Amino acid sequence: MYTIGDYLLDRLNELGVEDIFGVPGDYNLTFLDHITAHPQLSWVGNANELNAAYAADGYARTKGFAALVTTFGVGELSAINGLAGSFAERVPVIEIVGSPVSTVQTDKKLVHHTLGDGDFLHFEKMHDAVTVASAHLTIQNATSEIDRVLTTALSLRRPGYINLPIDVAAAPVEKAQKKLQLKVTSPIDSTLLEKIQTALSSAKQPVFITGHEIQSYHLEDTVAKIAAHTTVPVAALSLGKSSIDETHPQFVGIYSGALTAEPLKTYVDNADLVILLGAQLTDTATSGFSQSFSASKIIAIHPETTTVFGQDYPSNDFKELVEALTTIDYRMETSAALKTMPSTKEFIATDTLLTQNRFWEAIETNFKQNDTIVAEQGTSFFGITNTQFKKDMRLIGQPLWGSIGYTFPAALGSQLAARSKRHLLFIGDGSLQLTIQELGMALRAKLTPLIFVINNNGYTVEREIHGPNERYNDIPTWDYAQLPTVFGGTDQNVATYKVTTETELAEALVTAQADTTRLQWIEVVMDQTDAPELLKEMGRIFAKQNTH
Amino acid sequence: MYTIGDYLLDRLNELGVEDIFGVPGDYNLTFLDHITAHPQLSWVGNANELNAAYAADGYARTKGFAALVTTFGVGELSAINGLAGSFAERVPVIEIVGSPVSTVQTDKKLVHHTLGDGDFLHFEKMHDAVTVASAHLTIQNATSEIDRVLTTALSLRRPGYINLPIDVAAAPVEKAQKKLQLKVTSPIDSTLLEKIQTALSSAKQPVFITGHEIQSYHLEDTVAKIAAHTTVPVAALSLGKSSIDETHPQFVGIYSGALTAEPLKTYVDNADLVILLGAQLTDTATSGFSQSFSASKIIAIHPETTTVFGQDYPSNDFKELVEALTTIDYRMETSAALKTMPSTKEFIATDTLLTQNRFWEAIETNFKQNDTIVAEQGTSFFGITNTQFKKDMRLIGQPLWGSIGYTFPAALGSQLAARSKRHLLFIGDGSLQLTIQELGMALRAKLTPLIFVINNNGYTVEREIHGPNERYNDIPTWDYAQLPTVFGGTDQNVATYKVTTETELAEALVTAQADTTRLQWIEVVMDQTDAPELLKEMGRIFAKQNTH
Repeated sequence: MYTIGDYLLDRLNELGVEDIFGVPGDYNLTFLDHITAHPQLSWVGNANELNAAYAADGYARTKGFAALVTTFGVGELSAINGLAGSFAERVPVIEIVGSPVSTVQTDKKLVHHTLGDGDFLHFEKMHDAVTVASAHLTIQNATSEIDRVLTTALSLRRPGYINLPIDVAAAPVEKAQKKLQLKVTSPIDSTLLEKIQTALSSAKQPVFITGHEIQSYHLEDTVAKIAAHTTVPVAALSLGKSSIDETHPQFVGIYSGALTAEPLKTYVDNADLVILLGAQLTDTATSGFSQSFSASKIIAIHPETTTVFGQDYPSNDFKELVEALTTIDYRMETSAALKTMPSTKEFIATDTLLTQNRFWEAIETNFKQNDTIVAEQGTSFFGITNTQFKKDMRLIGQPLWGSIGYTFPAALGSQLAARSKRHLLFIGDGSLQLTIQELGMALRAKLTPLIFVINNNGYTVEREIHGPNERYNDIPTWDYAQLPTVFGGTDQNVATYKVTTETELAEALVTAQADTTRLQWIEVVMDQTDAPELLKEMGRIFAKQNTH
Repeated sequence: MYTIGDYLLDRLNELGVEDIFGVPGDYNLTFLDHITAHPQLSWVGNANELNAAYAADGYARTKGFAALVTTFGVGELSAINGLAGSFAERVPVIEIVGSPVSTVQTDKKLVHHTLGDGDFLHFEKMHDAVTVASAHLTIQNATSEIDRVLTTALSLRRPGYINLPIDVAAAPVEKAQKKLQLKVTSPIDSTLLEKIQTALSSAKQPVFITGHEIQSYHLEDTVAKIAAHTTVPVAALSLGKSSIDETHPQFVGIYSGALTAEPLKTYVDNADLVILLGAQLTDTATSGFSQSFSASKIIAIHPETTTVFGQDYPSNDFKELVEALTTIDYRMETSAALKTMPSTKEFIATDTLLTQNRFWEAIETNFKQNDTIVAEQGTSFFGITNTQFKKDMRLIGQPLWGSIGYTFPAALGSQLAARSKRHLLFIGDGSLQLTIQELGMALRAKLTPLIFVINNNGYTVEREIHGPNERYNDIPTWDYAQLPTVFGGTDQNVATYKVTTETELAEALVTAQADTTRLQWIEVVMDQTDAPELLKEMGRIFAKQNTH
């Protein structure tokens, strides 16, 4: 019998989903049978629901779309911080919540996983702020509501929520006759395009700054075309690193407000036109709002609005508008001289203890074309920001939402979405502690990322902001190198390393990169007071932001 | 300088809080300085925020009140499922959320840990459903709002929420002049007491059934007095086991609807008056609403309402009303014959593999007066339900909210609240995987509970409901006995055991109980298809509840 559950699964699969994350619970068990029975879908059991949401986010960033299944109440609330991150950073993830049978809900029965008040709508209401579409399925509305939630989430690149009573999941329904139509392509606002052309034509020192919304809409190649055609220099925010290929001739570096490297900083300080392509000027991205340009010089193109010199134009054709920019004309010849990133230096290891600076230098020399880098919002993200990426390398991070622990499950989710693509995760010990149990899933699923655990004895990012020696920034001492052995690691599925010196790191890198059939788990010991220069500066700025 | 942060901490301490749970974040760091500097408070750094909320819940159940500190957005949403559990099961926990400085919020700045839309109220609104009082502090309202949230939460035994902008925390304020007055004692509704007396006077076969709300209000001793005075038999729900001392002569056993043991079941089936004392008739507690009595026989006394034979009387004097019941007159002499729990049998270990039945028999023989038992909502809770507790033993579980993984941090929180009290935690492998990282905190804090990890290869409670052999009920294989060694365990702070036979268990119990200065970590291997009888029955009932 073909059921509403099957319909939902077929629609997800039609939109690119091949793996479904989540945790079983008695209100979703019979629906899970339909996942395991689906020929194109695999069930990925996560250790907990927050990890499932993080993994789904990582999967969606790489594959374009993702889904997770939790149980009612307890499961969905455990996952909600993950959904919030997907909302903030525009990642389309569908949460499917298996809920009690419809009659239990309408009769307001006092069942487990409720607040004991007979109200079954509390939790879906709590999701309103972090989803762009939600539905409470009934036998009558199921197919149209499923289609609406999925297409809205995918079009707006934000999470959707589906409450699926377990009897509704099991009810019969007809297969869909037609493929989903994602969005009627709307003609772009041509006056907007003209305004941009006019502004650019009269600009003497223009710059494009790209951001994470470009990545959400997978417009990296389009940005490369715009850059090539117009020859305008393109900087990226850290919240958007790899939104343009970093080997592109027009790419000039990472713009970080006052902390931008020269000569790019001076160029942007003196720019007479700044075109923001899906770039959000957050505190982290701009080193505490220290950008040099004001609204009168900005054209900001975002999914919901384009703003031209302070004037808002609501729009819903972000993708089309960005694509239309490839037709804009402008010629200039200053880009090459602006490049802030020196060519990658050879790393000659010595037998000294590793520092943050030297660690990132070593890592940069080991980048390979097509790598996916995942960097936790701590020393790792700030360390990676100004490294020079190779062709077609991508960065996954979470610099706007910034939930610590996110990257470990997210890296595994992304690796599942692209098993053959090399993934390198950089995460600190403090962050890893939040989500460590997902290591069991990684080993069971035989994933093979290179994972660098930076052991510097606590929350270094917090130490840089406040309380460098306070006990609250310390964490329990774990034996990081031995962790895989208790989570299901064997000689067959994992190789572990612990390095403290440059030489040890260099040797581990050689071995780890050659060993492509096992997960590579590399503990990197560094001093707790050491941090990338960018983080030290940012720490001072955030400390100030938090006092007045 | 005495600050608003200090005022909040002093009020918490005045109400019994001595340890504060949480995770640092840049929006709470400077407030944490005031915690570490407070002479009567200790900071308990948790591995993640959900664990912090669970630990705070366990602490509050034992100590009466608890607080956790998270950072804005990411932290509070990670913790929210823990708060929801405290709301459902009536545990007073205060969540303090360190948020950006007031001007950042009023200027709607695009800072990290937001959804990027300048709205700083999303997350506190999401807490409305799971708190009884919340406040967004300003310099002007701080002291009165702190007092309101704390007293409301403590009076109603449910969570409160405080959004604390970091500049408000640091602002000067005067010390409180007066102690908080929790509640003006209201005279009870004497007509209600008369109705109960009248009903009881004409009853031939009455029974009291007690539940978890008695524990929330710490009225266990009052219930014992009511029982002694009236000589009416008292049963407890599993959702309320230990709400009356199980060695009390009037205590007759656990009432579980149709699954109640004889002769109690027949007695209640034929009862002409059922007085529910803070007892909620949930699906789990009643084996799927299989209780034999209907509204016309029920007087239900709850914190917000007393219901007499179907008629609701809103009330806010739960504690006073229960206390007044100690004056009610009734004499009968049938209790002793009703007792369902046989005296604890001697456990004679043989060299056979452990079964669930034999495991719980062995555990029962090892109970000691004053023990706190913590049992996860899986095989453990159902296994413990019908064991006979010794004098002054208490049970902590979460049978209404039922969030798996809850009990591990909750047991640690409770142990912190009463270090000298022996704690025994029973948790399955599937549940432990959700919250394992808190083991680091336990070892660092030198806690010494006895922890029984039931390794039966997955989610046995789910297998009993649906999918006994489905892959989604399997979990990654961990090396449970070795876990402590990677989380900071040494010979000084932990002893580990792995037992598969009755003899091994018996030997481990002897050794573990004598070793009171270290955490005792006992892996207990049992078959994945074995389960306590009560759970097997409940599994069939839940499977049915989930199909129509």
